[in-house]
This record gives sequence, structure tokens and C-alpha cells, in this order.
Amino acid sequence: MSQSCDNILLTDLYELTMLQAYFDSGMNDVATFEFFVRSLPARRNFLMAAGLELVLDYLCRLGFRDSQLAELERTGHFSPRFIQSLESLRFTGSVDAMPEGTVFFSEEPILRITAPLREAQIIESRLINLIHYSTLVASKAARMVLAAPDKRLVDFGLRRAHGSEAAMLSARASYLAGFSGTATLLAGIRYGIPVFGTMAHSYVQAHEHEIEAFEHFVRSQPDNAVLLIDTYDTEAAAVQVVNLAQRLAREGLYIKGVRLDSGNLGAHARHVRRTLDASGLRQISILASGNLDEFRLRELAHSDAPIDGFGIGTRMNTSADAPYLDCAYKLTEYMGKPRRKRSEGKATWPGRKQVFRRLDADGRIESDCIALEDERQPGAALIAPVMHDGVRIGAAGSLDASRDRARRELDSLPPDLAELEPATAFRPNVSAALVELARQLDAGIARERRLPSR
Amino acid sequence: MSQSCDNILLTDLYELTMLQAYFDSGMNDVATFEFFVRSLPARRNFLMAAGLELVLDYLCRLGFRDSQLAELERTGHFSPRFIQSLESLRFTGSVDAMPEGTVFFSEEPILRITAPLREAQIIESRLINLIHYSTLVASKAARMVLAAPDKRLVDFGLRRAHGSEAAMLSARASYLAGFSGTATLLAGIRYGIPVFGTMAHSYVQAHEHEIEAFEHFVRSQPDNAVLLIDTYDTEAAAVQVVNLAQRLAREGLYIKGVRLDSGNLGAHARHVRRTLDASGLRQISILASGNLDEFRLRELAHSDAPIDGFGIGTRMNTSADAPYLDCAYKLTEYMGKPRRKRSEGKATWPGRKQVFRRLDADGRIESDCIALEDERQPGAALIAPVMHDGVRIGAAGSLDASRDRARRELDSLPPDLAELEPATAFRPNVSAALVELARQLDAGIARERRLPSR
Repeated sequence: MSQSCDNILLTDLYELTMLQAYFDSGMNDVATFEFFVRSLPARRNFLMAAGLELVLDYLCRLGFRDSQLAELERTGHFSPRFIQSLESLRFTGSVDAMPEGTVFFSEEPILRITAPLREAQIIESRLINLIHYSTLVASKAARMVLAAPDKRLVDFGLRRAHGSEAAMLSARASYLAGFSGTATLLAGIRYGIPVFGTMAHSYVQAHEHEIEAFEHFVRSQPDNAVLLIDTYDTEAAAVQVVNLAQRLAREGLYIKGVRLDSGNLGAHARHVRRTLDASGLRQISILASGNLDEFRLRELAHSDAPIDGFGIGTRMNTSADAPYLDCAYKLTEYMGKPRRKRSEGKATWPGRKQVFRRLDADGRIESDCIALEDERQPGAALIAPVMHDGVRIGAAGSLDASRDRARRELDSLPPDLAELEPATAFRPNVSAALVELARQLDAGIARERRLPSR
Repeated sequence: MSQSCDNILLTDLYELTMLQAYFDSGMNDVATFEFFVRSLPARRNFLMAAGLELVLDYLCRLGFRDSQLAELERTGHFSPRFIQSLESLRFTGSVDAMPEGTVFFSEEPILRITAPLREAQIIESRLINLIHYSTLVASKAARMVLAAPDKRLVDFGLRRAHGSEAAMLSARASYLAGFSGTATLLAGIRYGIPVFGTMAHSYVQAHEHEIEAFEHFVRSQPDNAVLLIDTYDTEAAAVQVVNLAQRLAREGLYIKGVRLDSGNLGAHARHVRRTLDASGLRQISILASGNLDEFRLRELAHSDAPIDGFGIGTRMNTSADAPYLDCAYKLTEYMGKPRRKRSEGKATWPGRKQVFRRLDADGRIESDCIALEDERQPGAALIAPVMHDGVRIGAAGSLDASRDRARRELDSLPPDLAELEPATAFRPNVSAALVELARQLDAGIARERRLPSR
């Protein structure tokens, strides 16, 4: 596979053709773009912001290498003068954003870019690509955390993630949302996330006898042996685990856990737990995996199935019941003048905005208000500066700090929004000043329509 | 973002702990693994194989760099002797597979790896990651091609793809399945796919007047100007396009097309077409985009909406109605002996297999038979050798050749399977010899259960 993660040419062609048009007509005044989600998927009562740190990393490194300029030239779409102008392109703008882990709702901007037009434009495709997916996964994983708050949840999703970067970003986003770790080794190394692992059916099958497979593994991973016991017959394998544990204990070797991956997980867990406990092996934990979503997790947690942790893959990192968000990155101001798109069903709020949140006496979200940036509204402002003149303000946020924030944010959800079932949609208020600004702009656009400029 | 696409540590931790256990017990005989999809999503009548060339690239380059071995050491999970053994690890095995673009069904292996056990094991996570997603997208995109066979379909999906690699792989897989190109510049460059682009709403909004935006763009991209006309009022913008086209024609400048992105696309297209045609601008094409799936495409195509091409993003490259496949990569033979997993609901067919396909007199798929590799069955064998001793057999398959094959394969679908609505599931036959082998293995496993080996 070609290396694409960090390549400025990973963009839509139109970002560059627009840039050339801006260049040709000398347009490069300060523009403000905002990223927001128009409306929440039917199965989401809230979303959780994620991906900001990745966007800031991307912006810090933005620029064209010579080889990339040569590739642009070969496309035949661009003039030599324009290509030359790209040599010095860097991101020199400002970023204001909700920190990662913040809960947010429809139409609320979670990230604002203020920069010379060309810089703010060219980052569009990749910025959305990074923040959309991270937010999608954090929002899904947060539901799983709410469904089984006292269980260890581990990302098992590399194989069915949509490509390599999805595996990396979903390990990060799910940890941020409250997962305990990931099975993806590289994500653990790069992001400092705890890494967990068990064994595959192929490992068991490659041995003539299941118990040999178990014994080899415990001897090879004496501190970390979680044995997969459903390859042939789960309950029979549990008996073998007891025999093996008793034999190995004489050598000071211990089995850490067993994993169930098929059948009725709750029933198997009860049976296996009884088998283990009857031989005094209470310290062997039980993990379960296999097409789990938040509803199965809740069912297993509520039924007091003796399962200590869950491996969760596909449904988390594809956000299977809502695999995308209706998000946008829209121009809201240019040359100091507010801008508004009026496309049917996709109209946007103009101007630089802030979101104010009021909590009730219990610390739960009471109301949000989308207002203009310079307004004062009751409540806490959720959007704060994080980059100025292309330079980060302060140190990079740590993932663990974001994870702590995410936990507090989940605690601030009103009970109905914390449920898995759809609640009455939480709708932010819109300030009177913002409504008025939109009205004035619409009137201006309508005037122009009646009197075409040429 | 960290570069992860080509990093051997992008794997599940357990692949490496299993490898250490194999190493510690001296297991490295020849193993065969097969990749297959257990059952098709309810909304898919067939799947289309894709991703093989990416897997072969990955296998050709497999190996640990010193820095990666050092990172492994730092995890504390592995012994120095084991880590040293990884220094020389390369892929030296064989690959047999259905070529990209082949239509296939449940339980049919589409790729077989035969290699020393450790090599065949360590590639598992990334191999599935590459081939699952490519196949998922090709299968979805093929439905869109069937829904609008005479229209130009272009991948617009970078922004909501699940990370960078998903954007690249989905541009490739959708082109393979019959799309005409992609908006993702880097995918166009790397895979030789035609690249298309229009403009964004922000481009229009950044200008004081919409018509100025249009004129700047045509002057900057005289051969390639597709104007987005729904930012404020689609029909009014179409009138402006006519005025502009007539004025610019005197300078020899032409407008290539317009794009609709909101509202009732069919109705807008009819209105805009009439406006353009009334002024003799028949050569200006109409593109449409905005949350399109195969059903909307079919509706617009069947209603004779005058739309020449479609930009298709999110629903294609997230495969929104079926965002994952129930796929697996399973050990089917080790040390010359067939292996079988018997987990509840997840049992697998043992041994090295072949798929034979019979066509009817019209060249349509009549029946498939999953058989043992050394059986002779009527029909054409779909699986062929593509790599031997770690070396590709012949040159890399070209993407355009795979695209041609995909078109022929879609032509070979029986009419009910080519429909968008769910048909009666097509079930491959299983040869008598394969059924018998599974029975014998089960009997052997049952015997072992009654007489534990220790």
C-alpha cells in the first residue's frame, strides 16, 4: 500500500482547482470555516467530539514537498505559476475548538478554522476525514461504555476496520471514550494505549490436542495467558483448563483468563464460571467476544453474566448502525463578512460562533445555546482557542486527559440522553442575534437575486 | 498521523504472542489458511472479490525493520530469542485466489495462503483488513453500477471515508467495480484512475456574487469547469450560467457542466436542462450528488432525469446499509492434515478447496460447487495460483483488466441476483468428498473429547 496518511495530495481535486481559481483572482483574505454535524443519526442521543489532536498535527505539518508539486504538474490541471505559489504554503491560521471528549449536539460547531482563504480551503477534505471518523467512533464507543460501565472493554476491531488508518483511529477514539485498551499493537505503541491479546482458533487448531495448545501458550506467555476455549466444545475445554491450571500451579504457572467467542455467551460464561470456581480457580477471568454491540453488552451486564471483559470490534469501529455522520465544514465568514449557504435542507448558520452550555444543579446538561462568538450568554463556553498563527497554544492534549474529560461528560448527560434507546432529540437554542444575522443575510441574497450583478 | 499502512506492527497483539508460542514449541510446518465470507449481508445478492493485488504487495514486502524489533522488545511481551527469530521473517509461501472482480458467494474461499505456520499466521490481521474492506466496497459499488449502467459514476467519498486508507482503497475498489473515476487526487495518481472535480459551496460563498465565482473558475479551469449551482437558488443560478456561457463563448471559453447537490435532483435537473437547452447549451452536462445510494440512482435513471453523471460518496465507501462482511481467515490444513473449527454457528469446511462454476447457455451463473482442491468437478475453477515461494506468478494484474473482468462478471449474474432487492440466496453446492471429510474430522474430534489426551 502506498503511504497516504500524511500526504497533502490526499485531498479532493476540487480543493486544488478552487485554490488555483482563488490564486488567479488574487483572493486570499481571512476566512472562517466551521465543522459541525447537521443532524444526529436516529440512533444517537448525543455525539462525542474526537480527532482534534490529529487535525492539529496535520495542520502543523501542512506543506508541499517537491515530489508532490511535480506530481501536481503531471496532472496537467494546474499552471506553473500556481504550482510555484504552493511551495511556500503552510498553515498560519487559528483553530478554536471543543476539546476532545466533549459531548455535543446537532448544528453546534465543534471546530473553527480562521486562516487565509487558500489555507482554510485546502485542508477541508482531510480535516473532515480525520474528525468525522474519530467523532463517529467515539460516539459509538461511548454508548458501549454507558451500556456496561463496570466492564473492561477492549477494541478487537483491526481486521474489519475500513483500512489501516481506521484501525488506528478507532483504537484511539474508543480508548478516549472509555474503553480499557486495544488489541492493535501499533495503536498501543503510537498512542500509549494498553494492549490486550488472547489467541486465535487457528492456534488451537494447529495443535493435535487443544490442551497442548493451551499448555504451550501458558509456558510462552506465563504472565498473560488468555485461552480461547470455544474452538470445539466450550464446556469440555473448561474442564481441560481446570486440569491444566492445577498441573501448572505446581510449577508456579497461572492462567490469566479464558475467552468465549460463540454461542450463548451468558450461558457459557455461567457454566464455565461454575466449573472454574468449583476447583478454586476464581482468579481466572472470563472474556467474551463475537459481534457485540451496546445492546448485547447491556443485556449481558444486566443479566449478571459472570463476564469480566469484552472484546469489541466490527460494530464499534464501523459504527455499524450509523456508519457516518451528516457533517460539514462550511464557510461562515470571509473578509469580515458573514456567509451563509442556503441550499435546500442544508442551510447553514452564518458568522463565527460559540456554544454556551448550562448545567443543572446536579451537573447535568440543561441547555445549549449556539450564539455569535462575541455574544455573552449564560453558561460555559465550550469552544476555546487551541492554535494561533499556526502554532499550538500550550502542549498537545494528552489522550488520558481527554479520556478523563469524556468520563465527566458522560456523567453530565441527562438520564434520557444516556439511554441506548432514542430519546426526544436534544436541540440547542439559537441566540436571537444569530437568527437576526441569518435573516439579514437572506434578505441581502434575495435582493441580489432580483438584481443580477451583471 | 503516524504512517501505519505499511507497518508490520499494524497487527493484533495475539498474532505475535501466538508466533512466540509456535516458536517456543518449534511449530512451523506448512499451514493452509483460507479467506471466505460466512454469509452474505441481507442486502447483498452477491459479492465481488477485491483487494488481492494489495495483499500481494503487502506479502512481497513483509518483514521487520530494526526499529520495529526494538519497539517489540519494549512492549515486554517477548523473549530476546523470539525477537531475534523475527529478523529473517519473510513471506515465502504460496497464494491461490479468485482474481479481483470475480463474483462470489457465501462460504466460497476467495484466497488461500499456504506457507510455514508463522508466516501464514502473522499476516492474518492485515490481510483481512485489506481484503475485507476492498471487497465490501467493490460489492456495494457494483450495485450502483447495476442501478445506473449508462451513467458516469464518480467516487466523491474521501471526506467521510473511515480514515485515509479507506479513501484510497474505496477509490480503487469502486473503479474496479465500474465507476468512472474518483475525486480523490492521490488515488488517481497512485492507481491511475481518472480524477474528476467540481467546486465547493465555500468557493461560491467566498465571492460577493455567485456569477463572479463561476466566471473566475471558468477562466482558471477553462477545460474543466463544472459549476456548483445550488448554493443559493438552483434555477436562478442556471439562468446566470446561461448568461455567462453566452458571454464567455465570444472568448472561446466553455462551461463543461453544472452540479446539483440538494433538493429534488430529478426536478431540478429537468428544469436546468430546459433552461440550458433553450439557449442552445446542450453540451453543458448535468452532474448530481448528495447522499446517493443505488436505490436513488435507479430511481433517477429510470425516471429519465437528464443527469449525465453522479458523484457518490458516503453510502458507497462506508457501504452504509451493510458496513461489514462476516468474513474469516481460517486454518484448514496443518502438517498435511485437514483442520476444522466447530464453534457454534461458526463451523468451517476443512482442507484446501477449489470453487467450480457452471454457466448456462446464456453465460449466466448456474451453480457453484465448493470442492476439495484435488477434485474434478464440472465447470471452471475460480481459484488460480498467483504467488509461489513468495514470488508473484506473472506480472501484477492491472486495475483496468480487473475492471473489465468485473464488467463481464456482472453480465454473468442471473437476473434475480442482479436486482437491488434481496433475491433467494444463491447457495453454492458442497461436494460429497468435502462433506465426507468434515464428517470424518468431526468423528475424530468427538473421539478425542471422550478420551482426553492427558
